[in-house]
Amino acid sequence: MDSWVDGQPGDSLSIKDRGLAYGDGLFETLAVKAGQPVLLERHLQRLADGCRRLGIVADHLLIRRELLAYSAALGEGVLKLILTRGDSQRGYAASADASARRILQGNPPSSYPQAYQQQGIRLFPCATRLSEQPLLAGLKHLNRLEQVLARAEWQDAEHAEGLMLDTSGRVIEGVFSNLFLVHQGVLFTADLSRCGVAGVMRAQLLEEAKALAIPVDISDISLEQLRQADEVFLCNSVYGVWPVRAFADLSWSVGPLTRKLQSIARALLEV
Amino acid sequence: MDSWVDGQPGDSLSIKDRGLAYGDGLFETLAVKAGQPVLLERHLQRLADGCRRLGIVADHLLIRRELLAYSAALGEGVLKLILTRGDSQRGYAASADASARRILQGNPPSSYPQAYQQQGIRLFPCATRLSEQPLLAGLKHLNRLEQVLARAEWQDAEHAEGLMLDTSGRVIEGVFSNLFLVHQGVLFTADLSRCGVAGVMRAQLLEEAKALAIPVDISDISLEQLRQADEVFLCNSVYGVWPVRAFADLSWSVGPLTRKLQSIARALLEV
Repeated sequence: MDSWVDGQPGDSLSIKDRGLAYGDGLFETLAVKAGQPVLLERHLQRLADGCRRLGIVADHLLIRRELLAYSAALGEGVLKLILTRGDSQRGYAASADASARRILQGNPPSSYPQAYQQQGIRLFPCATRLSEQPLLAGLKHLNRLEQVLARAEWQDAEHAEGLMLDTSGRVIEGVFSNLFLVHQGVLFTADLSRCGVAGVMRAQLLEEAKALAIPVDISDISLEQLRQADEVFLCNSVYGVWPVRAFADLSWSVGPLTRKLQSIARALLEV
Repeated sequence: MDSWVDGQPGDSLSIKDRGLAYGDGLFETLAVKAGQPVLLERHLQRLADGCRRLGIVADHLLIRRELLAYSAALGEGVLKLILTRGDSQRGYAASADASARRILQGNPPSSYPQAYQQQGIRLFPCATRLSEQPLLAGLKHLNRLEQVLARAEWQDAEHAEGLMLDTSGRVIEGVFSNLFLVHQGVLFTADLSRCGVAGVMRAQLLEEAKALAIPVDISDISLEQLRQADEVFLCNSVYGVWPVRAFADLSWSVGPLTRKLQSIARALLEV
């Protein structure tokens, strides 16, 4: 399906765009099912939060309308929204009248092997660490060189994802996923106040867990905690939940809480 | 003057460009004087170093030829080169056949007030800190949200530049300049192995200082060292050298070493 730039079909944008010059913008990647964007409200909420924190002024009602209209036309697939601060002249200062630019790209549904869901995946140990920047932590912004470097560390199909630590050695997330551990019945996921992307599926699963009265702990996670985990899984808003069966010399079987949350995610994502 | 995209006149690029999606690329900003790019070899060297560290394959002879041809046509002004990893499909992994994209934009000569050079400037104390990421430190890459946030902290014309510390509180650089101190005849500038941009004019001035037998110290700089400095100045490859006359409650007069290095920079930059 054709891409849209500021609501019009198009596949190019101005080279003055601050998204190109500085990565000055945000993005969202949404699954689209039966013409509807999945978890739309959470995506819009994260986008609005990102705009507020970066000082990007955007018409959020218009963005909502475009996401709905584009999804209806796409039917099934993956929709990527890039929102930039718009054009500017040379220099970091944004024009007072800068108008945020909306770019929508549609892709076919993701085609990961079924085995990732069923038997789980092997996690690559990335040497690239996440730097600590509280001003950007949690945001899905366009400054993603750390993820590019991390993803370039492996080419084999053996590893479906990579694990990223922060520069202090804490366990944070996958390159394009959030990470959860289960230990003695408690669901753990990393605190993302210094780095990391606060994923929409992560937020959804945290809420589902609370509704199921599963104890949740959002805090710093060490490699030792990962080692001792009973279950490990990844999530994002496109593929849902992937059990982790191996990382370096560690291995896990797919546990019951992983399966429970996976089925909840699948119900959201699959037609 | 028209911009060039991959050697052809143009002012737009594909929305699939990884520069937009991830800030996956580098840039250089060169002064152009009498049709020649100033400090071309240093700019090319930094660009090649950045490509090597990010794994971007580019035709550096072609880039050189385009910079020379564009500068000859521009005559006088400021030339910005953006080099991205090119287009890709969805996902952080780059295509094996990704071809680096070259974007050249010409601007008129910079029009900073003469007073910045003569009387010096006041430095804004930015609250935005630089995160520590050795894998990206020194590079002039396209992930510049920290600079965008820092530059948005002040709007008044009183402050020509802002001072950025790293997340550990070390004095690093300006938002778009490198910083030097003089203390008891020694020229100090920050070590940039954890964060910061290793500026071309900084490198040039360090070499000039060595040629003048001025002792140079490249190491961590504290706010206390800034406080005790005899002279403070900023530099970049567009404006040359700006003395710093004030920062917060501190003030300095313009010193002899600042003037000496300023005149060297001016000789490079002015027609």
